[in-house]
Amino acid sequence: MSRNTGDEKKTSNHVPRSALPTRRQFLTSGVSLLAMSASSTLFGAQDEETRAPIDPMRVPGLSPRPYGERSRFERQTRLVAGTFSTTPLQDLQGIMTPSALHFERHHNGVPTIDPTRHRLLIHGLIDRPMVFTVEELMRFPSTSRLAFLECSGNSRDGWGEAQDVTVQALHGLTSTSEWTGVKLSTLLDKVQKQRDATWMLAEGGDAAGLARSVPLTDDVLNNAIVCYGQNGEALRPEQGYPLRLLLPGFEGNINVKWLRRLKLGSAPFMTRWETATYTDLMPDGTAYQFSLVMDAKSVITKPSGQQQLQPGFYEIQGLAWSGRGRITSVEVTSDAGRTWQEARLQEPVLPTCHTRFRLPWRWDGRETIIQSRCTDETGYRQPTRDALINVRGVRSIYHYNAIQSWKIQRNGFVSNIYA
Amino acid sequence: MSRNTGDEKKTSNHVPRSALPTRRQFLTSGVSLLAMSASSTLFGAQDEETRAPIDPMRVPGLSPRPYGERSRFERQTRLVAGTFSTTPLQDLQGIMTPSALHFERHHNGVPTIDPTRHRLLIHGLIDRPMVFTVEELMRFPSTSRLAFLECSGNSRDGWGEAQDVTVQALHGLTSTSEWTGVKLSTLLDKVQKQRDATWMLAEGGDAAGLARSVPLTDDVLNNAIVCYGQNGEALRPEQGYPLRLLLPGFEGNINVKWLRRLKLGSAPFMTRWETATYTDLMPDGTAYQFSLVMDAKSVITKPSGQQQLQPGFYEIQGLAWSGRGRITSVEVTSDAGRTWQEARLQEPVLPTCHTRFRLPWRWDGRETIIQSRCTDETGYRQPTRDALINVRGVRSIYHYNAIQSWKIQRNGFVSNIYA
Repeated sequence: MSRNTGDEKKTSNHVPRSALPTRRQFLTSGVSLLAMSASSTLFGAQDEETRAPIDPMRVPGLSPRPYGERSRFERQTRLVAGTFSTTPLQDLQGIMTPSALHFERHHNGVPTIDPTRHRLLIHGLIDRPMVFTVEELMRFPSTSRLAFLECSGNSRDGWGEAQDVTVQALHGLTSTSEWTGVKLSTLLDKVQKQRDATWMLAEGGDAAGLARSVPLTDDVLNNAIVCYGQNGEALRPEQGYPLRLLLPGFEGNINVKWLRRLKLGSAPFMTRWETATYTDLMPDGTAYQFSLVMDAKSVITKPSGQQQLQPGFYEIQGLAWSGRGRITSVEVTSDAGRTWQEARLQEPVLPTCHTRFRLPWRWDGRETIIQSRCTDETGYRQPTRDALINVRGVRSIYHYNAIQSWKIQRNGFVSNIYA
Repeated sequence: MSRNTGDEKKTSNHVPRSALPTRRQFLTSGVSLLAMSASSTLFGAQDEETRAPIDPMRVPGLSPRPYGERSRFERQTRLVAGTFSTTPLQDLQGIMTPSALHFERHHNGVPTIDPTRHRLLIHGLIDRPMVFTVEELMRFPSTSRLAFLECSGNSRDGWGEAQDVTVQALHGLTSTSEWTGVKLSTLLDKVQKQRDATWMLAEGGDAAGLARSVPLTDDVLNNAIVCYGQNGEALRPEQGYPLRLLLPGFEGNINVKWLRRLKLGSAPFMTRWETATYTDLMPDGTAYQFSLVMDAKSVITKPSGQQQLQPGFYEIQGLAWSGRGRITSVEVTSDAGRTWQEARLQEPVLPTCHTRFRLPWRWDGRETIIQSRCTDETGYRQPTRDALINVRGVRSIYHYNAIQSWKIQRNGFVSNIYA
């Protein structure tokens, strides 16, 4: 065995001998074999994280893996701020949000729950109080549905005037997943809900014990799901593993995560989460409770805050959604509202689900403002900021859904403005 | 500082002091502080991987994370066999396949490709040969689509008689994702395809240099996508990062991964991948080439091979898909084909996409055989194994799509049979 062969064996085990420079190549180039490893020749002088073969076709690739990971060249992340993390809307494609990038909001951290020990208790105004294991719930007839979830505090900076922020920081508390579980109505049939049970307490098994009152309307009974699945596999810990409530179209926090208890009653339970927080303070100082449904909203995600454009072609893209059903139209202006054009909606357009819109556009290098406004199947159209504030004032934290304006400066820089 | 405090500090850093047993509790229980760590008291005697607080409500949870991971209690994996890995169909929910569990097939491993150095060359019978970076491709108008991909060799054990296998091992080379990219037709307009360009070579940048000939039919021109996105983020390495071809409904291997070159021509290119392999050997010894479209198939995933039932209620579930469009019907028999019932199809039912079907069922403890058969929008109905073999013989490896039979023994054990 020559020393050349010995050196090769020290290199990464997926570099075959045939792909390495020959001894003759080393010698004629005048470089010492000892001074230069074959690895650095093949991979270049990049850092460990991002190194790749100079010619991937000359190096056998990696073997199959039991559970995959994204490419190490991909760095998009949620933006973590206290007890929140936001979805990078500017990087999303299509309508699905990767589970790893679904927004988070929790009130005392993400609990670690052993699914074999977790239980769901259903009691109150029912004939047969019952306790279910997760395994038992998975034996019931199931259903799946694509749906967005949005924190009621999403876009809250719209009430104030935050400067120089990204679409992720402004609007990133919304995400779409495919959710799977048992219809709430199936479980309520099983435990024999009584006729006067018109409200339901849903309590989470996290250290905050977050609990909300759910009105048992026909809409809720037809659509609510006790979920154990997200995007084809189990719920992620941040989204309620092993069980959560899904109330399509309702504000995020009432879709109670780490669900441990449902209690039926004949009136709202008035938990601290619906008195001390999660109410809408109106201009006259009164507070709206149980403003549960998320109204229609849209936002342009490309181009968006803190991005840098060059004159030329862009496809304007964004997301639109409504807690009241399907999005029927998204209009886009690229001249500060003088003219509006209908954007193309990506099929499938599903109720209470992110809908992607797209519109071809050429930036001519002049200063301008771009905006989107959506309409949902009830005929509701997303309001301007002025119209929203006329009704709601600026004392609220929640349920801000006005049109987002992005200003494009002559130098191509994009920033959020309050137009 | 007492020794108690010192011991606590050695425990997991998300266990706050207040949640730990007090010194008094330790002393009154007669257990030595040194012999028993606070950690084992709170978490029980489980192994490190699966330990969780006995009462998660008494322990603050984990902080938000930039990029999430599944719960450590979840262990579903792809089954790795040589150059394949299969999707755990028995564990999937809904219609989406998590990217981490999408099946794999590669011919010389998964290449590591630096996206900033990757290029796509388009040449041949076009007026303007061009080379694109990934960034340039992402500037074109884009489109997204949910679609299944299935290896043409999926279900190949159906031709033989493999015993005692799971649905994952038998049929797990199929998965569904939301794919995003540029329509092929958009790029061919850009490079000015010539009128006599009726075929296209697609070549991958892996060490195998897999290359296939794609007929430029209207269907292909309307539906093919040069993809950079999967399930909301970048393609996974195993699925072609940073670029792949998507030909909805076509056999997996022609959806060329790590796409580096498209060459237009007026005839198929007759690569080794369409001569030495990926042809269908017929009973008379001749070989069918370019049998590209995946015919309709369905399979019951719950209950399925190697599972163990007890008498009682089950929801029969499975997946159905067709390369020729939408699934219009799935029928299920639970009495070995004497009677068939229409299963419920989960909305949305999309063309060339997995469709989940469900049917409530009560197993009475008697031996039986369960099967599913699907019909697609062209009116094509999934064949019995006998009917398929009558036409195709048993010399082929690819394109097996016959009805799958699961036998349930009196002891509740489920196994695959060739009925």
